[in-house]
Amino acid sequence: MLVQNKDQRPHDYTETDLYPRPSHADYTYLAKYGVKASSGGGRASARETIGRVAAGAIAEKYLKEAYGVEIVAFVGSVGPIALPFSHEDDEVLGKEYLDLVKNVTRAEVDKEITRCPDRATSAKMEETIRAAKARNDSLGGTVTCVIRNCPLGLGEPCFDKLEAVLAHAMLSIPSTKGFEFGSGFRGTTFPGSQHNDPFTSDHGKGENRLRTLTNWSGGVQGGISNGEDIYFRVAFKPPATISQTQSTAQYDGTDGVLATRGRHDPCVVPRAVPIVETMAAIVIMDLVLQQNARAHAASLLAPVTSLPPTMVFPGQRK
Amino acid sequence: MLVQNKDQRPHDYTETDLYPRPSHADYTYLAKYGVKASSGGGRASARETIGRVAAGAIAEKYLKEAYGVEIVAFVGSVGPIALPFSHEDDEVLGKEYLDLVKNVTRAEVDKEITRCPDRATSAKMEETIRAAKARNDSLGGTVTCVIRNCPLGLGEPCFDKLEAVLAHAMLSIPSTKGFEFGSGFRGTTFPGSQHNDPFTSDHGKGENRLRTLTNWSGGVQGGISNGEDIYFRVAFKPPATISQTQSTAQYDGTDGVLATRGRHDPCVVPRAVPIVETMAAIVIMDLVLQQNARAHAASLLAPVTSLPPTMVFPGQRK
Amino acid sequence: MLVQNKDQRPHDYTETDLYPRPSHADYTYLAKYGVKASSGGGRASARETIGRVAAGAIAEKYLKEAYGVEIVAFVGSVGPIALPFSHEDDEVLGKEYLDLVKNVTRAEVDKEITRCPDRATSAKMEETIRAAKARNDSLGGTVTCVIRNCPLGLGEPCFDKLEAVLAHAMLSIPSTKGFEFGSGFRGTTFPGSQHNDPFTSDHGKGENRLRTLTNWSGGVQGGISNGEDIYFRVAFKPPATISQTQSTAQYDGTDGVLATRGRHDPCVVPRAVPIVETMAAIVIMDLVLQQNARAHAASLLAPVTSLPPTMVFPGQRK
Amino acid sequence: MLVQNKDQRPHDYTETDLYPRPSHADYTYLAKYGVKASSGGGRASARETIGRVAAGAIAEKYLKEAYGVEIVAFVGSVGPIALPFSHEDDEVLGKEYLDLVKNVTRAEVDKEITRCPDRATSAKMEETIRAAKARNDSLGGTVTCVIRNCPLGLGEPCFDKLEAVLAHAMLSIPSTKGFEFGSGFRGTTFPGSQHNDPFTSDHGKGENRLRTLTNWSGGVQGGISNGEDIYFRVAFKPPATISQTQSTAQYDGTDGVLATRGRHDPCVVPRAVPIVETMAAIVIMDLVLQQNARAHAASLLAPVTSLPPTMVFPGQRK
Repeated sequence: MLVQNKDQRPHDYTETDLYPRPSHADYTYLAKYGVKASSGGGRASARETIGRVAAGAIAEKYLKEAYGVEIVAFVGSVGPIALPFSHEDDEVLGKEYLDLVKNVTRAEVDKEITRCPDRATSAKMEETIRAAKARNDSLGGTVTCVIRNCPLGLGEPCFDKLEAVLAHAMLSIPSTKGFEFGSGFRGTTFPGSQHNDPFTSDHGKGENRLRTLTNWSGGVQGGISNGEDIYFRVAFKPPATISQTQSTAQYDGTDGVLATRGRHDPCVVPRAVPIVETMAAIVIMDLVLQQNARAHAASLLAPVTSLPPTMVFPGQRK
Repeated sequence: MLVQNKDQRPHDYTETDLYPRPSHADYTYLAKYGVKASSGGGRASARETIGRVAAGAIAEKYLKEAYGVEIVAFVGSVGPIALPFSHEDDEVLGKEYLDLVKNVTRAEVDKEITRCPDRATSAKMEETIRAAKARNDSLGGTVTCVIRNCPLGLGEPCFDKLEAVLAHAMLSIPSTKGFEFGSGFRGTTFPGSQHNDPFTSDHGKGENRLRTLTNWSGGVQGGISNGEDIYFRVAFKPPATISQTQSTAQYDGTDGVLATRGRHDPCVVPRAVPIVETMAAIVIMDLVLQQNARAHAASLLAPVTSLPPTMVFPGQRK
Repeated sequence: MLVQNKDQRPHDYTETDLYPRPSHADYTYLAKYGVKASSGGGRASARETIGRVAAGAIAEKYLKEAYGVEIVAFVGSVGPIALPFSHEDDEVLGKEYLDLVKNVTRAEVDKEITRCPDRATSAKMEETIRAAKARNDSLGGTVTCVIRNCPLGLGEPCFDKLEAVLAHAMLSIPSTKGFEFGSGFRGTTFPGSQHNDPFTSDHGKGENRLRTLTNWSGGVQGGISNGEDIYFRVAFKPPATISQTQSTAQYDGTDGVLATRGRHDPCVVPRAVPIVETMAAIVIMDLVLQQNARAHAASLLAPVTSLPPTMVFPGQRK
Repeated sequence: MLVQNKDQRPHDYTETDLYPRPSHADYTYLAKYGVKASSGGGRASARETIGRVAAGAIAEKYLKEAYGVEIVAFVGSVGPIALPFSHEDDEVLGKEYLDLVKNVTRAEVDKEITRCPDRATSAKMEETIRAAKARNDSLGGTVTCVIRNCPLGLGEPCFDKLEAVLAHAMLSIPSTKGFEFGSGFRGTTFPGSQHNDPFTSDHGKGENRLRTLTNWSGGVQGGISNGEDIYFRVAFKPPATISQTQSTAQYDGTDGVLATRGRHDPCVVPRAVPIVETMAAIVIMDLVLQQNARAHAASLLAPVTSLPPTMVFPGQRK
């Protein structure tokens, strides 16, 4: 019920001939294109993401087979109900949260109807969503996503930093309001001495690469992947469609009351999970192709001899 | 002192022949390109933003003259010191914060050395930065930016939503960790009934357009500007360069201790303010050109006759 | 018969399991993608141009309504049969050819089954095509196209000159071998004193713009349209598919004889006419949008006062 | 003298304050941008190609080292003086012309001041250029270019066919009027039975690839390189700047006589040779990067098992 939209009732929207729905795209589309969509949402509907998911499925399959990349997203909060262990005072992010990011599987995520893999939190979320539905209201939330085994060296150094392209992709999903990766906004409150990620060869034994002890960088340094887990959070606003009467102006400027009818999803966050995953896969696939072009080209030249002699880096010319 | 880098001492970095600096781009650049930058930071240095600021100055001048666009950014937090009134429990964002977003000028911002326009907070920030400097540590923070008088109808409906392009631009600035616009992450905790922005003709009297009573949407609905203030926050991590010894691995995998010397900025957030403004100007300028191409093309055709008869929208064919 | 392909017989191609067809894309597609198309031509088939024609129809409709743009293409030669008056010794191009370019209509073109609007030449072409068909051979030819009433100022000054973008578009049509505009290859043999196009105000009376007496420039100077007719020729090779036995190698390098069966078009040039027109429309539409973005943006600024005072140019700020 | 411009005399152009020079970009730039360049040619001057040559030098060096690519261009005609053996009646192109394309070296080209490697023709060209100079006139001509050892599989199948991208690049060079590759316009007059290029394993012995007996395709089939020589011709118009008086209109529409003074190159074709080479190198480099991205990505997957078993193609998954 939470993850499926079984109803198609465009004719519930008759009042929208008079009213631009608050916080919808009705008004901005009219201002931009000079025409009105004929049914609820039109091009602004998240139904357009179906094509993204189809493309992402191919990208994901490739990344899995070629590099063992794993992409898992889950719901971290719904309205005021959040995973209880996200933040601790003495650390940038809490250990339990990072453990979840490190280990959670899609199977664990999909076991919960809310796609929040913490059983107790999920139960509370479900209850909260049902209550919102009962009072004809809606709820937003956040999705956390992790990309594991991402190859080193992805992302372009200036305008197309990995995090910039990822933020672009995530904020192109309907209803999104924010993006943060690694330590994110929380990380701005900690000093550099706690926030820096020391290198270590411990974790990378046998892999011929350096690893980091902590990962506040979120797998990206200088806009380029460092091989650690890339993790990020995406904020989703509460859906604008609610079945309550709203005092708002008509297209012609007359103040009035809009009483939207019809059934609507009180919370789209659980359904956003695969969209976040698919956009992550598409971004990584694009950057893989870009970096492969460069690395393969370099592989055809004579080796550069000025490198540190004792360590061979992934993608390095031999 | 806070806003200028008077020292150029590349030769302080001799240890970096052996060590990739923690949370810097040294390691990822080597992995990506197979070569090392010859001095601190190389292409990853924020010095590259000088070209962006030059371009943005032209964009901003145009936007001001053609549309009266105003772009003002300010520092909202430095490490743990934040504007005291950002969030209130009973509202998505606090009134004082929104008043600042609505009214703050560049002159007010530049009066403070920290570029935080609240005198008392700025004083605390300065003290905190000096203390961090004294203990050879660094601090991150957040920058809030507002774009006023942005024309309606900017932003493309699907992949290049205004917020997506803006997030891309902001996350392309070195050291950024997150982006949120309008109600942002905070807005995810409120129900739709409180979060929706009702339309009103009150504010737009004589302007022939609808305004919204609240602006949790942050000036963007369905990826397209609605003419209200576009405001957003950008997170900056604490600079990775600190003058403390750090236990970390060498390029060859040997564990060791890196003792970076040299003088470094303990906090770059005040200097990030014009970079945030410039990237905002570049984004809006690009979207203006895109939308103008469409609107000007449409203006040469016969009018569409199926529009609501009582109101003429900006950009609408007459 | 000449302009329709009524037969779909993919199973005629069984020998192509063994043989890459000479001058087809079979071999290069396999080399590029590592897989083989399952039926004749695959992605290399000109059937893909159907989508282009659909897009071009919209562009053409817009250009016609907004600017009165007329785009007409016609067949100028089929194999060795060419319009008799293309070239004269004492001029860059012959007067009759230029008259045709100036005045020919689509109705006149479509009246002839060969789409060559000169009745006598068309009859010879038809005969030649029938003869080629009878001996299981194929014929190439050329298409001339003219764009009338193109707005001034289209085309970007360096890499995306109008002629560069047009050449790109034309050479993207399957089976094309060359592109020339205005005086073309023929114009290279004449001295500058004969080739330059003097300006005159005669032709542009009441239009507030300068015209040129001759038009060897083909409507483009410095990569930018000057408002005169844009005309160009596109070369099409004889179709590679012929129903004759051909001595050629198999994929495995064994020499052999390929006897392609099935019915094939002996000459595709008449059918290329709408494809040339559609690509011309798409190019002009793209450049219109680009230039409109710039011109509309400029129109919002205060006027530049250093212009020649006596003449107002199209697109000029007033 | 022919290949160097030692004079910089912007003040010779004072009459151009009143006159748009015929067949120059003066008028179109003013129409496009609403402002006038302050000296002769402005952005339309071929001096801008210096940056292209710098970029092309790097691309060429890479292509040579990585793939053994050789790019050689030469002057094939100046005004009415052309290589005598370009065309023969019984063949698409003459044997001597194809031999030159196959074997000519840069050293041979650069030995001649005209960059036409045929001694006798070069002498005639030089004489013709001197005569044109003496009568203050100018001459156009054609440049032929060959790309040898181009990797198989370059070029995208639809809009960015190798020849389309190459045509775009060539027509972006100032003063160009046409582009043809392989058999070109001449090839349109021959039947398919003579024009098809049969495959053979003879030429490719030990190379594990098929070759073609003839090469009317010019090294490209279906928009994709087949490993044979890519050769093409580019037409250059006679320079618009001539030191003769010209009857033409002023900017304000007044008819008058323009007497351009100053020294000008009577023929730029010899100097166009390195520009043609550099644009060819840039195009091939771009397509190499695109194809390498795809081929390298494919190389990481399990092999496709449905390929013809007896032959391994370049770039094929093993």
